[in-house]
Amino acid sequence: MERLSKQIQLVLELDKLKSILRRTRVKEAQGRAENSAEHSWHVAVMALLLEEHANEPVEISRVVKMLLIHDVVEIDAGDTFLYDTVATEQQSEKESLAAERLFGLLPDDQARELKALWFEFEQAQSADAQFAKALDRLIPMLLNFNNQGQSWQEHGISRHQVMTMNNKIELGSEALWQYAKKMIDQAVENGWLRAN
Amino acid sequence: MERLSKQIQLVLELDKLKSILRRTRVKEAQGRAENSAEHSWHVAVMALLLEEHANEPVEISRVVKMLLIHDVVEIDAGDTFLYDTVATEQQSEKESLAAERLFGLLPDDQARELKALWFEFEQAQSADAQFAKALDRLIPMLLNFNNQGQSWQEHGISRHQVMTMNNKIELGSEALWQYAKKMIDQAVENGWLRAN
Repeated sequence: MERLSKQIQLVLELDKLKSILRRTRVKEAQGRAENSAEHSWHVAVMALLLEEHANEPVEISRVVKMLLIHDVVEIDAGDTFLYDTVATEQQSEKESLAAERLFGLLPDDQARELKALWFEFEQAQSADAQFAKALDRLIPMLLNFNNQGQSWQEHGISRHQVMTMNNKIELGSEALWQYAKKMIDQAVENGWLRAN
Repeated sequence: MERLSKQIQLVLELDKLKSILRRTRVKEAQGRAENSAEHSWHVAVMALLLEEHANEPVEISRVVKMLLIHDVVEIDAGDTFLYDTVATEQQSEKESLAAERLFGLLPDDQARELKALWFEFEQAQSADAQFAKALDRLIPMLLNFNNQGQSWQEHGISRHQVMTMNNKIELGSEALWQYAKKMIDQAVENGWLRAN
């Protein structure tokens, strides 16, 4: 029962991720901001659907697990907008502390496993992590495109910024990067993304 | 590219699950209603954390996959409150049609696989499905308890209703059902749940 109590404590703490807001907007919900919990669900399902497009064979259950926990640290550290490069630099230490505290609520064996998995995602070196990262980068682009570039327009984002910040999609999936580039070109053509 | 287009079409359609509201409330977000997308994330992570409490060994990646897709049908069929037994009866046909339409957006092999997995969850006969169902029943109770029984109080729910509607948790996990019963007793004692 002691293990279960610790596990339930983290389950309850995770409720807070539903209040961490992102820049992406939810089209059907009158354009309210997406939160990191629903984003984590969306990108995990996306992994299940798009597994075949990974550059290398991936262990999809690990990719899904990584994606389910990848944003949990935001409960303490908050979300950082991809294009806010100053905030992104300062984010790393805050997130490490958050991983210690949050996964540290669990029994030791589980705490170690999830911290390692989260760190593997952050490092983006393994095939599983590179595919997971590719999906995490692609999904806001897809949703933005589907929203007529709403978040890009709100923040005056340019084609160059989108290309620079997202070209690592290619490391996880060349097929998805081809798809993304076509979408970026179309977004510029539609006036949803600045050309320079 | 044709397969990818079909898969992306479902990914975009899934955005709508973020607008399907449940009776459970999100404590940290000023008590707004929880949506089915963030619920699906929460219960999938819960499965990862609580695997060891399943009655029988489960294939946890299948359990997680089931939980990630179990509510997708609500995009067409809406959410039904567990204690609304009349609506629940009418729900089944609507959900089957929804599964056909939504998973039917995918390439045939994936459509077949996900429809079968969704149906397995609904049937609740396999060990994987029984554990997934147990978690799906337990998590709103946990969140309600953590919210001082807010949703139970709003809808005048009784101990008898909670026991009757949730005792199948035992089929998936005796340990979790023991935990749940203690919580129910405590909720009655605290005046958050009607005693009769």
